[in-house]
Amino acid sequence: MKQLSVDEVRGRLEDALASGRDAEVSRLAAELPSTEIERLIPELDARSLGVLFRAMGDEWLAGIVSELDPGVAARLLVRLTDVQAADVLEEMPPDEAADVVGELREPDREDVLREMEHEEAADIRELLEYPPETAGGRMTPEFTALRESMSVDEALQFLRKAGEAADAVFYLYVTDVAGRLAGVTTLRDLVLSPGTRTVGEITKREVVSVQAADDQEHAARTLRESGYLTLPVLAPDRRMLGILTADDVAEVIEEEASEDIERLGGSQPLEEPYLTASVWHLFRKRILWLLALFAAHAYTGNVLKFYEGEMATVVALGFFIPLLIGSGGNTGTQVVTTLVRAIAVGEVQMRDIFRVFTRELVVGSLLAGSIGVAAFVRAWTLGVGPGIAEVVALTAFCIVAWSAVVASVLPLVLKRVGLDPAVASGPFIATIVDGTGLIIYFSIAKVVLGL
Amino acid sequence: MKQLSVDEVRGRLEDALASGRDAEVSRLAAELPSTEIERLIPELDARSLGVLFRAMGDEWLAGIVSELDPGVAARLLVRLTDVQAADVLEEMPPDEAADVVGELREPDREDVLREMEHEEAADIRELLEYPPETAGGRMTPEFTALRESMSVDEALQFLRKAGEAADAVFYLYVTDVAGRLAGVTTLRDLVLSPGTRTVGEITKREVVSVQAADDQEHAARTLRESGYLTLPVLAPDRRMLGILTADDVAEVIEEEASEDIERLGGSQPLEEPYLTASVWHLFRKRILWLLALFAAHAYTGNVLKFYEGEMATVVALGFFIPLLIGSGGNTGTQVVTTLVRAIAVGEVQMRDIFRVFTRELVVGSLLAGSIGVAAFVRAWTLGVGPGIAEVVALTAFCIVAWSAVVASVLPLVLKRVGLDPAVASGPFIATIVDGTGLIIYFSIAKVVLGL
Repeated sequence: MKQLSVDEVRGRLEDALASGRDAEVSRLAAELPSTEIERLIPELDARSLGVLFRAMGDEWLAGIVSELDPGVAARLLVRLTDVQAADVLEEMPPDEAADVVGELREPDREDVLREMEHEEAADIRELLEYPPETAGGRMTPEFTALRESMSVDEALQFLRKAGEAADAVFYLYVTDVAGRLAGVTTLRDLVLSPGTRTVGEITKREVVSVQAADDQEHAARTLRESGYLTLPVLAPDRRMLGILTADDVAEVIEEEASEDIERLGGSQPLEEPYLTASVWHLFRKRILWLLALFAAHAYTGNVLKFYEGEMATVVALGFFIPLLIGSGGNTGTQVVTTLVRAIAVGEVQMRDIFRVFTRELVVGSLLAGSIGVAAFVRAWTLGVGPGIAEVVALTAFCIVAWSAVVASVLPLVLKRVGLDPAVASGPFIATIVDGTGLIIYFSIAKVVLGL
Repeated sequence: MKQLSVDEVRGRLEDALASGRDAEVSRLAAELPSTEIERLIPELDARSLGVLFRAMGDEWLAGIVSELDPGVAARLLVRLTDVQAADVLEEMPPDEAADVVGELREPDREDVLREMEHEEAADIRELLEYPPETAGGRMTPEFTALRESMSVDEALQFLRKAGEAADAVFYLYVTDVAGRLAGVTTLRDLVLSPGTRTVGEITKREVVSVQAADDQEHAARTLRESGYLTLPVLAPDRRMLGILTADDVAEVIEEEASEDIERLGGSQPLEEPYLTASVWHLFRKRILWLLALFAAHAYTGNVLKFYEGEMATVVALGFFIPLLIGSGGNTGTQVVTTLVRAIAVGEVQMRDIFRVFTRELVVGSLLAGSIGVAAFVRAWTLGVGPGIAEVVALTAFCIVAWSAVVASVLPLVLKRVGLDPAVASGPFIATIVDGTGLIIYFSIAKVVLGL
């Protein structure tokens, strides 16, 4: 039999789903790479999803749903029966299941939770109490805790019984009767200690931990800097609620970087993956900034109207407007993006503002000199005469240096007043620099050309 | 005694270092937060560094150096004696030590490696064979491997002896006599199995692994998708060389995001932290793109010169040039940044190009309509008359829609021809759109105003 292409397999799977041929579905679904399944599944109707659930089982489906964006996953779950959706959620890691349940509206949310096993539903309800962008919202509530008073033998016995839940356990957190964190030990220490010693005797008392209400970015940074694989997440009374894992850190870093990138590009961050976000969602995330920048930019019209006389007298001055303000915008964009990133990863702080300013003044002057020379050459080759060429070169120098300087302080100033530095986007700095750049241009022209 | 501020403590520490008062140094250095030490230490001279090494010891210093950028750390190590530098490197995780040694020039590199313990130096030499951006360059070569033929009791005995090296062990990789990966088991399975069974009997044979030569981004993605805490890194003959950890994943994600952000901002990525990079380094990373964009942008001068007659006849047309091309650039920037990010995190692929195009055509038309209305209002309020206002509104509509469409295909096309989609930066798209936007503007003006 000849090898089918991925597209062919997907086509046949869709047919088999539509006509409910279970055996063929399970064979084809197993053949398709999971990334393909993840793309296909949000598009299936309720009937096809039901067939897929029947053919592949809740565990398989949970593995796929875990990889989806929570919003997409929630829209998929409501196409299953409540019992099926509950089965799938039970098979997912509780923190990911909670993210999906958090996207469900009432009464769907309550209906599905009611169908779940009591313990799993309780875990999810607890997680839903913390906003998704906090350590509490990120944590998984599944962890294995020992008591100080246990003997080593008792502890090993306990782990044996805990079974699969303790599958990925390396650190063993030690809690008191009230569930408050007392310390940490490791499976290795437990194994290598005599069976009659108590857990308390091999417990390390200093534990790096985070609070459930801590911002996810802060919590992720703490975990990375600690060098541990997981960190305990605590309630204000030190009760241990869950653990934060390396997986969570990766997700937080990726999410925060995505948000910064979207802001730097002059739009609000999307809350869903690009391809599944609605056209209306994309429009809403862009239009506000676009209109705000348009309004801010509108004064360039007034500036140019003010210099109407000069423009009419020396039409050639107009030739260089896009090039000059474009170069200013490009320089400013370079500076703000570098600084926003340096602030995000913690390399630059408020008190560095003077150092940043002087560095950018020097670099900006060097760049300004280079672009000034290029601008002179450009004006000369367009044949506008030495006077205008001189104006263009001088303006290029001033605009580039000015942009670098404005862009060097803007991100830190925004942070200082409590705004996200990433809103100092490329479009934002270009808007600021364009109008001021035009004023610089015509001021220089008036002096040099004696207008 | 009153509480000293961080700045005061740092000042006193610098004094104590300069005058070599060891006892005071160790007291003050212990008091200062490690982030402060990380900022202070690259600025110390050889003498002060020597005092700090004497007072705090190699292990403490290794903890600080591990947090520094490898280039900065290397410049710091050469200010220590070779013996001191070797002591510090021995205390660091081998993969991080290798990154630092990789930044040393000969003969410093060889001098330091010679002073290190044989085994640690050999680890580093092996790591240096792989480029830093591969799985081999990222991995840590410290891992604990068992043999299939060992009994469970023998394996536990072996782990006991392995001591600290096996401290953070959860997965136990199983290799054959030639060191080739045979499978994996866990400490938990080992502990919970009868002592007389062999390791081979409790070994899981299917292991997700990566190749040492694999790109770090691919390797990090594999680890994340696998759901495991670590992955084995293999040579082409399946010999196990090291492990990739969650820590490495976090670093890779952060590094790749930083590179994308810098490229989107229209400059080449910095290879060092912003504050420690030289001014010359900053200049070099920016000037090439700035000049390239200037050259590409220069044709706007020709376009405007071509329409010199129209500009002289209707000077008011010039008032709206910055606003119109700015809006086009802003739209394009929004689209490319969103798409570049979606491509980077794997949400959008080449075969989605048609879907992306149609989505952006719809969203772009909606945005174009909104900005078109805003542009008409703006032109009207500037009092330029209905004819020009109509030209400005029509142009705004066309430029915004056109930018969205160009920006929707550009990132995927760049990826197709083997370039990084992130070079489709905001400045790049603005440059493309500015010239074409001007042609659109004056073409519409000629028709509507009958010029």
